[in-house]
Amino acid sequence: MTSDPRLTALAASLPASVPFTGPEALERARGVAFSARLGANESVFGPSPRAIAAMERAAAEVWMYGDPEMHDLRAALAAHHGCDPAHVMPGEGIDGLLGLLVRLTVGPGTPVVTSAGAYPTFAFHVAGFGGVIHTVPYRDDQEDPDALIAQARETGARLIYLANPDNPMGTWHGADTIARMVDQVPEGCLLILDEAYIDLAPKGTAPVIDPADPRVIRMRTFSKGHGMAGLRVGYALGAAALTRAFDRVRNHFGMGRIAQAGALAALADQGWLEHVRAEVATARERIAAISRENGLTPIPSATNFVAVDCGRDGAFAARVLAGLAARGVFIRKPFAPPQDRCIRISAGRPEDLDRLAEALPAALREARTE
Amino acid sequence: MTSDPRLTALAASLPASVPFTGPEALERARGVAFSARLGANESVFGPSPRAIAAMERAAAEVWMYGDPEMHDLRAALAAHHGCDPAHVMPGEGIDGLLGLLVRLTVGPGTPVVTSAGAYPTFAFHVAGFGGVIHTVPYRDDQEDPDALIAQARETGARLIYLANPDNPMGTWHGADTIARMVDQVPEGCLLILDEAYIDLAPKGTAPVIDPADPRVIRMRTFSKGHGMAGLRVGYALGAAALTRAFDRVRNHFGMGRIAQAGALAALADQGWLEHVRAEVATARERIAAISRENGLTPIPSATNFVAVDCGRDGAFAARVLAGLAARGVFIRKPFAPPQDRCIRISAGRPEDLDRLAEALPAALREARTE
Repeated sequence: MTSDPRLTALAASLPASVPFTGPEALERARGVAFSARLGANESVFGPSPRAIAAMERAAAEVWMYGDPEMHDLRAALAAHHGCDPAHVMPGEGIDGLLGLLVRLTVGPGTPVVTSAGAYPTFAFHVAGFGGVIHTVPYRDDQEDPDALIAQARETGARLIYLANPDNPMGTWHGADTIARMVDQVPEGCLLILDEAYIDLAPKGTAPVIDPADPRVIRMRTFSKGHGMAGLRVGYALGAAALTRAFDRVRNHFGMGRIAQAGALAALADQGWLEHVRAEVATARERIAAISRENGLTPIPSATNFVAVDCGRDGAFAARVLAGLAARGVFIRKPFAPPQDRCIRISAGRPEDLDRLAEALPAALREARTE
Repeated sequence: MTSDPRLTALAASLPASVPFTGPEALERARGVAFSARLGANESVFGPSPRAIAAMERAAAEVWMYGDPEMHDLRAALAAHHGCDPAHVMPGEGIDGLLGLLVRLTVGPGTPVVTSAGAYPTFAFHVAGFGGVIHTVPYRDDQEDPDALIAQARETGARLIYLANPDNPMGTWHGADTIARMVDQVPEGCLLILDEAYIDLAPKGTAPVIDPADPRVIRMRTFSKGHGMAGLRVGYALGAAALTRAFDRVRNHFGMGRIAQAGALAALADQGWLEHVRAEVATARERIAAISRENGLTPIPSATNFVAVDCGRDGAFAARVLAGLAARGVFIRKPFAPPQDRCIRISAGRPEDLDRLAEALPAALREARTE
């Protein structure tokens, strides 16, 4: 199908591909629903009951636009982080915020640096604005801060993207390593520190960073620990000159009424987050145990998922994934070698992981004999 | 405050201004809440009770991302319009869809045509991508299709924006006029037909347009008649080559779970829409009556608001608006002369319009003596 002739040259050049296929599309193709939804790192433990109540209350008030300044949510986030609201910019998930940040900083030919196989939505946005992506490989299944910094120096990159903890591998660096990396960000470059999974990481993993530090912008989300992926609320923390620039291009009424109310209530219920942390830790151990029982190697994780090394190549891991899907278990896997030898299993409730335990032996058997 | 040095030249050139100030910001400045919220053309009659119930149910499931293909909502919208789902692209409100469409079609220097004083968010997006805005004046308080077409021919415009019914004036053209306009769209140009208010217009106002017609893309929303402005759901109807292009740049998981569920339930409850239409018609008559009692001239409206001619200049109308705000009544007004002589009052419940009726005489008195 040819492009519409009114598209810009850039838009016409973009592929029609999408970052991820949703489980619903796979279910429609299979004609049957998954019995365990463990592929998108959603929090099957759900949102805080207080957040649910707040969203229910907001539903009847949804005839009103949300506050375009997101005042109450920004104020609460600022108080949570002990900073001024000027350093906080909520947005429609980290995906939405990454899109805006890339739009603000990347034009045709602008070099950026990320890891080969890192979160594809960042690369999707960079390509969408004509930027040039330079990658460095993972090192021991971890993103490699030194290599990212060196590549940024070499290419004159405007942006470096690093997720800590990392998705899709679940590995992480300690606060000291990240703080050292911030100190090495080249002049004219910005480090995007994606902390989507930080709520599930060991305490102390997040470095102390002055929110006014212009070298780094942090991204946080209510999608993972807080269990509200379908609400679309994330936020950026950074220097005011940068957070304020979002106002030039963002959809000012894009953060809806239910979204703001739900996030505000979730933030106030840190006890629920503690509960989820405990559930996730239990689930990680169970996933690791199931993996080992099947001769696979779980990779230590600071997230709500576990990357499991299937011990062979990407094609083998893809067969395991397909075998699990055929048995009703939705999971995903890393895209780039050699990390694509792994499958990525999200934390589940005991009944979800029972499905995994039931399905995995046969999926492996099939994958080995194909 | 200087721009961050890492912004693109385009981003650095953009003003920090925003399309609209929210009522919440005005309330914070006043230190007291408005008693009548009649400024943002929200539907104070609320969403369908069935939509509220669907959103409440979805709140507990919001740990799941929404279906990125929005399959069920697209299918229902396609059935509603009697077309193939390929012609339907839901998105985060018309604001969000306009942003994506402008991104797909407008680059630095691309000419576009709109009316002076028309919906500012379109111009916000065009400026945000470096496009050049050419305007034509309203004619008898209506957008002027012939002038828009002529201006598009003269400037070689890529886009023409027309809202029918119009915001901020509430005026409208019949289906035949719009159909004739579509026939005159120059080669290489696309007509954006914003039908945000079509649910409130006389039956038959929407022209019959082949959804495969590449000359026009229509925008619809759940924010107005359906009363879900704070949910952020709109959709584009157009040729598949165009709707499919959105997939190249949109946030694939941007339409959340509650949003999809709420919109689907609202669409199924056309009876509620009939109820709202009747309430809005009653409110328009009451606003007209209150205006006339105060010596002002209501302009006929096919929307959920009435533009009221205050009979003097924009400065006078601004004083009336300020006087109403000081008395707890939130309204807005057109930006560009001579339409800025009007104030714009959204349809309200009887109790909301009682507040208006109480406040207007004093607000006018003050405005006249200042």
